[in-house]
Amino acid sequence: MPVLRSPLPRARWSLLLAMAACAAAPPEPTDDEPRPRLRHLGVTIGSLPTGPHNAITDVAGVRVGHATVVAGRDLHTGVTVVLPHADNPFLHKVPAAVHVANGFGKFAGGTQIDELGELESPVALTATLNVPRVADGLLDWLLAQPGNEGVRSANVVVGETNDGGLSDIRRRAVTAGHVTQALANATTGPFAMGCVGAGAGTICMGWKGGIGSASRRTGEHTVGVLVQTNFGGRLMVGGVPVHAHLRPEDVTEADRDGSCWIVIATDAPLDQRALQRLAARAFAGMARTGASFAHGSGDYALAFCTAPSQRITAGSTTTGGPVLRGDALTPLFVAVAEATEEAIVDSLCQAVTTRGRERTVPALPIAPLQDLLLRSK
Amino acid sequence: MPVLRSPLPRARWSLLLAMAACAAAPPEPTDDEPRPRLRHLGVTIGSLPTGPHNAITDVAGVRVGHATVVAGRDLHTGVTVVLPHADNPFLHKVPAAVHVANGFGKFAGGTQIDELGELESPVALTATLNVPRVADGLLDWLLAQPGNEGVRSANVVVGETNDGGLSDIRRRAVTAGHVTQALANATTGPFAMGCVGAGAGTICMGWKGGIGSASRRTGEHTVGVLVQTNFGGRLMVGGVPVHAHLRPEDVTEADRDGSCWIVIATDAPLDQRALQRLAARAFAGMARTGASFAHGSGDYALAFCTAPSQRITAGSTTTGGPVLRGDALTPLFVAVAEATEEAIVDSLCQAVTTRGRERTVPALPIAPLQDLLLRSK
Amino acid sequence: MPVLRSPLPRARWSLLLAMAACAAAPPEPTDDEPRPRLRHLGVTIGSLPTGPHNAITDVAGVRVGHATVVAGRDLHTGVTVVLPHADNPFLHKVPAAVHVANGFGKFAGGTQIDELGELESPVALTATLNVPRVADGLLDWLLAQPGNEGVRSANVVVGETNDGGLSDIRRRAVTAGHVTQALANATTGPFAMGCVGAGAGTICMGWKGGIGSASRRTGEHTVGVLVQTNFGGRLMVGGVPVHAHLRPEDVTEADRDGSCWIVIATDAPLDQRALQRLAARAFAGMARTGASFAHGSGDYALAFCTAPSQRITAGSTTTGGPVLRGDALTPLFVAVAEATEEAIVDSLCQAVTTRGRERTVPALPIAPLQDLLLRSK
Amino acid sequence: MPVLRSPLPRARWSLLLAMAACAAAPPEPTDDEPRPRLRHLGVTIGSLPTGPHNAITDVAGVRVGHATVVAGRDLHTGVTVVLPHADNPFLHKVPAAVHVANGFGKFAGGTQIDELGELESPVALTATLNVPRVADGLLDWLLAQPGNEGVRSANVVVGETNDGGLSDIRRRAVTAGHVTQALANATTGPFAMGCVGAGAGTICMGWKGGIGSASRRTGEHTVGVLVQTNFGGRLMVGGVPVHAHLRPEDVTEADRDGSCWIVIATDAPLDQRALQRLAARAFAGMARTGASFAHGSGDYALAFCTAPSQRITAGSTTTGGPVLRGDALTPLFVAVAEATEEAIVDSLCQAVTTRGRERTVPALPIAPLQDLLLRSK
Repeated sequence: MPVLRSPLPRARWSLLLAMAACAAAPPEPTDDEPRPRLRHLGVTIGSLPTGPHNAITDVAGVRVGHATVVAGRDLHTGVTVVLPHADNPFLHKVPAAVHVANGFGKFAGGTQIDELGELESPVALTATLNVPRVADGLLDWLLAQPGNEGVRSANVVVGETNDGGLSDIRRRAVTAGHVTQALANATTGPFAMGCVGAGAGTICMGWKGGIGSASRRTGEHTVGVLVQTNFGGRLMVGGVPVHAHLRPEDVTEADRDGSCWIVIATDAPLDQRALQRLAARAFAGMARTGASFAHGSGDYALAFCTAPSQRITAGSTTTGGPVLRGDALTPLFVAVAEATEEAIVDSLCQAVTTRGRERTVPALPIAPLQDLLLRSK
Repeated sequence: MPVLRSPLPRARWSLLLAMAACAAAPPEPTDDEPRPRLRHLGVTIGSLPTGPHNAITDVAGVRVGHATVVAGRDLHTGVTVVLPHADNPFLHKVPAAVHVANGFGKFAGGTQIDELGELESPVALTATLNVPRVADGLLDWLLAQPGNEGVRSANVVVGETNDGGLSDIRRRAVTAGHVTQALANATTGPFAMGCVGAGAGTICMGWKGGIGSASRRTGEHTVGVLVQTNFGGRLMVGGVPVHAHLRPEDVTEADRDGSCWIVIATDAPLDQRALQRLAARAFAGMARTGASFAHGSGDYALAFCTAPSQRITAGSTTTGGPVLRGDALTPLFVAVAEATEEAIVDSLCQAVTTRGRERTVPALPIAPLQDLLLRSK
Repeated sequence: MPVLRSPLPRARWSLLLAMAACAAAPPEPTDDEPRPRLRHLGVTIGSLPTGPHNAITDVAGVRVGHATVVAGRDLHTGVTVVLPHADNPFLHKVPAAVHVANGFGKFAGGTQIDELGELESPVALTATLNVPRVADGLLDWLLAQPGNEGVRSANVVVGETNDGGLSDIRRRAVTAGHVTQALANATTGPFAMGCVGAGAGTICMGWKGGIGSASRRTGEHTVGVLVQTNFGGRLMVGGVPVHAHLRPEDVTEADRDGSCWIVIATDAPLDQRALQRLAARAFAGMARTGASFAHGSGDYALAFCTAPSQRITAGSTTTGGPVLRGDALTPLFVAVAEATEEAIVDSLCQAVTTRGRERTVPALPIAPLQDLLLRSK
Repeated sequence: MPVLRSPLPRARWSLLLAMAACAAAPPEPTDDEPRPRLRHLGVTIGSLPTGPHNAITDVAGVRVGHATVVAGRDLHTGVTVVLPHADNPFLHKVPAAVHVANGFGKFAGGTQIDELGELESPVALTATLNVPRVADGLLDWLLAQPGNEGVRSANVVVGETNDGGLSDIRRRAVTAGHVTQALANATTGPFAMGCVGAGAGTICMGWKGGIGSASRRTGEHTVGVLVQTNFGGRLMVGGVPVHAHLRPEDVTEADRDGSCWIVIATDAPLDQRALQRLAARAFAGMARTGASFAHGSGDYALAFCTAPSQRITAGSTTTGGPVLRGDALTPLFVAVAEATEEAIVDSLCQAVTTRGRERTVPALPIAPLQDLLLRSK
């Protein structure tokens, strides 16, 4: 494995290690060294500034939690949850929209969001064949929330990509207990990325993929993105064709395919129409990472709005205040594309080499990546 | 309860009873007499002829199975499955499309059908909060089919309506075992309607709803429809405003809301585009029964094509023969609307008065209905 | 032709005549007597009350204008415009949405409304091959409005049905001048229906169709509908299968096909998502009139909101006040379905027998219709 | 203006000049030298081979024609047409689909393509406010084609971007005569790109945009793309962030916005569903050129299939042979993305500095571009 020759001053590495320490340790760390994020390599994506954590949790109130299921070489899977706020999500729904770039996926909860433009549950990401069990676990949790005693209908939202290359996906090993655990673990602030939760067993353009996140600030608003990367393509980072210089030794046919799930949060006051337009822009960012958008890819983006004025609270027949109109959306569109591109790259930067059921998938080697990127500046 | 004064000749009643005998007995029959179908009352809907069973199983190869879950007053729920053919549905996919008239529902499997236009699992209908468990049960079955040992991704399809008025829906009592049972029970030919399977606990325009089915022939093609009725409105039968003369004593506010799930099968060679247009026509039939299409209604139609030439069989990179073009579709559109309208009315005709968890919901009284309909001719 | 034996008291006929007098006289009246609206026959549709004119202009500020182009037997065509308010529609956009039930049509302006949810021009209806000329005429008018001197992009909205059975449609006889005339004629209050404007040459279920309108009140809100009827089917009025008793002598194959354009206005504060759901409900009303929804039918509904709080005024980056949430929409949904059903029937009631290019299409005969409807009550 | 220091051998420049000579000379050539295409600079995009002309006309039978309308500084506009084959397009329809990435546009003909999946007219591109006049001109031509004497309904297809920065767009200077001229000029083989037809007045990321084209071969199939570029963003070429090194002096706020129209042709046998998936991939290519996908951008892709087996010929009730299934589509998806990316860059390479109504927009300077691109290899 390549050795990381850090160009970062000691102080920044300390910060990095501190941030990593805040979060759960990645499972089965096969690399000995902590992995940097793209920014630590001195590389930026796009033009807008990030929030303090460069993560979806920079949108105030948003929480992320993981439950990682790893056992020997056979299981590398899990669940990752994103919550829009700390309140009961069924009683305090938020505006939401989904954009499906390629619908080869098992997304649960889509038609109700399309119809009503509302999110009333946490968003969970997991492995393809685990969607029903994770949805059932979300229901357990949601029906048990104080205030939900009389609820007879709830639209739980579960996305997925397929980790069957590294994990025994037919075992459907993610259970309701893992969902509860991920929800209990969910926090604001920094969180673990890479081979955690729903990212434990994913593969992206031949490298180990996983969970990534990034954020952007524009005006008074923040846009945050979280991705689960499992797609094929030819890796580009900030425009640099990395694939021409760095290639994993063992790329299978299957690595040319795959999926990406993208969750977008913003505190800008938006209705569903605007959120759907935001969600669509995520795929501009994904395209810039070199994604092939293959037939078998399930590429979804779900965007929600945390602005308090837009909450749909039980009992009210109207929503609150004004929303941004189209003319004000372009900076948010740019923010979504930039944050998605960076979150995808960060999912690779943070992931570690993983010995799975059928093969070993290498982490993207940091030192040659950094050399390449800095040389191209 | 009204007594059925039959205008049918003895021979036809015998046939009716024989047909009912073929199928599973309805659970907890609170009415003492067998219930007729609308046709037995001397009333027809529309202009096209029916197939031999006036049911979705008139489309050759289509099978229907139920598992009914009834326990005292507390549980009136279940699962109903529709299979497009007797082969492994994953290895022999069929063209399919979904039309969402009002997406307030928890439909699983929608985005992949939208993207690929293919159905690769049985279609299951159940109660709202049971969708994940039924989906998981479908996965159990599908992954276990001979030939599917290597399957790592499968799009199971589950629709629902909410039977929480008659059944303890929060118990999520329909389990994987019931799915297996419904699949094992699935047969061609006549099958039970009314308070069976996914129709055990549904309510339709204040009357007991349930499972209904009908079919139409046009040219050399058959269109079959199966419905799970649970919606609000003001009942009309063949244009007659029944609601003006016959009203259930106890209509709650909730009865004005609700949902309808519609499965359409045809042997006409059609691609997804045409199937989506067929699916949309189901709602013309539903409108003619007096449906209110309320905010809270989850109204979905899924149409699939059983024509052998259109099967997508594992390994082939192309599909087979020609499909019908637009100009040839109008009779099929009319067939869908007529069969849906009749299937909905038949779901009421076949359902029996049900004493549920919170209330008792009456069956549509046959004798006064017949009087009214014959008088209006 | 059947003679109208009026059951209306003289006073009501006077009112009727007065209303008709307010509006432009229908062109080439081949019937000697004024034609009633359905309500004048003592028949109501649905359960909700109408506004004062039972027309789309019951929504405050909405204006309707026609230009009718009739010449001998060869031309029976025209243009009808609907304006959401008296202000410059480009500088004061209103929320809007389109539902396409069957997109066999030449609708101009659709994708921008889908994307932005905004209407920035009058809505014009005309004949199929005239859409470009009417769109160009709308642009003339819009670009010339005071305040629009700098406008370089404007989304004009034109719907159509095909009047080629009665009119020489290939001549494209509706020109920019007619658009200007229709816009100049546009008024609030009562307006002519039947064989006027875009309804001059249309045929509906074998009878002479045309322009119809109706409205409903629910709570403090009004819903108004205007239709251009040109579709096939088997006429039902308020559930009564009129087609079984009254049939035009000469129904051609082409009469089984056709189209319907539906414009919906409401003063309820709604966003695009809600308006799209309203628009979809129009087709429940259309289904209840017996429409066949044939392959060749172009069936569109466009809904807009006139609530002042929802106007998108040039220069603002946000919209105003709160909008109704889903739970409050059901009465509006019912209103749309009822008003559409009645507007369609009224388009037939108001239309007169028309001797066209290739054939003569009879008006729906009022006296036998009335007999039939009153007998069925 | 930068001087082109050609790295091409003399023979290739001769070829280039010969190709340019085949096509109409670009209007008002303000640059003295012929402009190369990106390939002439020694730069390739993606991995797939091109067809012989690296243009949409590499798909057999496809023809392209322009009519350019230039007058002094005030008018830089026109119309570009794409025809799927040499036969009557109304009598020999081809499968087609549209993907709307951002629907801020005035696209005519969309809903019928969505409904039927068929293209029955040439595709025309023009300036925003000219859509109705060009549509009317297309109708003139279509109705006059031999065999169309009885046609009463035809869905003409017109896309647009806004050239109001360089041309007096409110004059609507493109008339029916220009449409006829473009159709008469339409040829197979090489054709003019850059500032011709609908590209005469467009601006792309601050540089002069216009018409571009490219093609890709995969297996036995060809995919061709033609673009009209008028959008904002930060130019990237093959991953190289050109915007960081080369910037037009005078970028206005408006240049950050804009639109792109993309026409895709393929000879692969595909149905509408597959074509829609192809169309969606165009935006991956557009994203890689640095497009900002701003609020005001009207970004559309229309894909059609020229495979003879898929033609929908008048009178037949079925279509012909088999179509490619999903598993075979990924190479075509990659082809669309690559060809779109290259066509966009070529539209800049081929365009010349243009002195327009309000400003002068520079051509992308070739020499520094070439230096930059070759240095980054």
